[in-house]
Amino acid sequence: MTTHPHQGRIDAQLAFLIEADKLKSVMRGTSLHDNSRREYTGEHSWHIALYAMVMAEHANRPVNVDRVIKMLLIHDLVEIDAGDVPIHSAAARDAATQEAEEQAAATRIFGLLPPDQASSFRALWDEFEAAETDDAVFAKSLDRVQPVVSNLEAGGASWIDYNVTLDQLESRVGAKVKRGAPAIWDALHTRISAWFATR
Amino acid sequence: MTTHPHQGRIDAQLAFLIEADKLKSVMRGTSLHDNSRREYTGEHSWHIALYAMVMAEHANRPVNVDRVIKMLLIHDLVEIDAGDVPIHSAAARDAATQEAEEQAAATRIFGLLPPDQASSFRALWDEFEAAETDDAVFAKSLDRVQPVVSNLEAGGASWIDYNVTLDQLESRVGAKVKRGAPAIWDALHTRISAWFATR
Repeated sequence: MTTHPHQGRIDAQLAFLIEADKLKSVMRGTSLHDNSRREYTGEHSWHIALYAMVMAEHANRPVNVDRVIKMLLIHDLVEIDAGDVPIHSAAARDAATQEAEEQAAATRIFGLLPPDQASSFRALWDEFEAAETDDAVFAKSLDRVQPVVSNLEAGGASWIDYNVTLDQLESRVGAKVKRGAPAIWDALHTRISAWFATR
Repeated sequence: MTTHPHQGRIDAQLAFLIEADKLKSVMRGTSLHDNSRREYTGEHSWHIALYAMVMAEHANRPVNVDRVIKMLLIHDLVEIDAGDVPIHSAAARDAATQEAEEQAAATRIFGLLPPDQASSFRALWDEFEAAETDDAVFAKSLDRVQPVVSNLEAGGASWIDYNVTLDQLESRVGAKVKRGAPAIWDALHTRISAWFATR
């Protein structure tokens, strides 16, 4: 039997893609829209990539939607090791520990890829985390706004679980959505205000 | 209160993205790699978009990876209405009924978007379904190969459920993977042969 010339490279790529499967078992604080169960990070990553594909025109500054989509596809892989920390939970306050765990996870997980891809994927993840480029700012906005839509559809869901106020939502979530996609936050504002008015 | 100038457009885009959430509740025949549960179509769509991002270099002919990723993000939305039909199941034989249901689903679901996006998303989905362009052929290869990797990792899984033979796998799956990504099929061949040798 002969060995295919790309065997070693494909084996490394498959090792990464096999590891990625574990993101389907990381549970988030957010529920599905029908409130039937909480969502997993893998499907969340798909949903916000679709948000990018649909909503790119509403970015505050021009973005490269193809880069934004790739960023969103990989942005949460570190949760395989570091877990998901819901933004409204008490655990979200210990940002330094969380960041150290995510950095170590990025090194391990992207390191499964062939070296050239390990570098380029890590650079794209670092760019997302830094939230400085227009693409990253917009990607972060979508990552923040999707749970808002989920909560509105699910009748409150994690806002009820974590006893969130409108002020907290505006400061923890709204400010980040508005930084990259103010038109989307504006468009949701009537529904958000109406929900919190009933609390 | 004033209405935001983009309100109507964003409302239509959100209606589509809210409908898309239902793809997280469509269950596939394939299991997660750790065999803990079957996977949902939303997370499958994320996984194969990541496959495209990693594996594009192995396409049989040059592809536009950004188009392939977008194609894969939307390729299974029709399952919200038409359901998933596992390739090895008896139901997979009634292709005409399945296709009619998927066409109607595409009309309804992409039709939620603003008209310009409804047209462009539908055209991309039609291209995927036709499997004639290089981008679509490669996208189809990834859609077929991911369940093979899952089954290998999960110890057989849906191959056992549907009593699949190596010949059936080669004709139903291998032929389509090889059309767009022969190097990936070659690289998996040793593992596939070894698994079926134990049956």
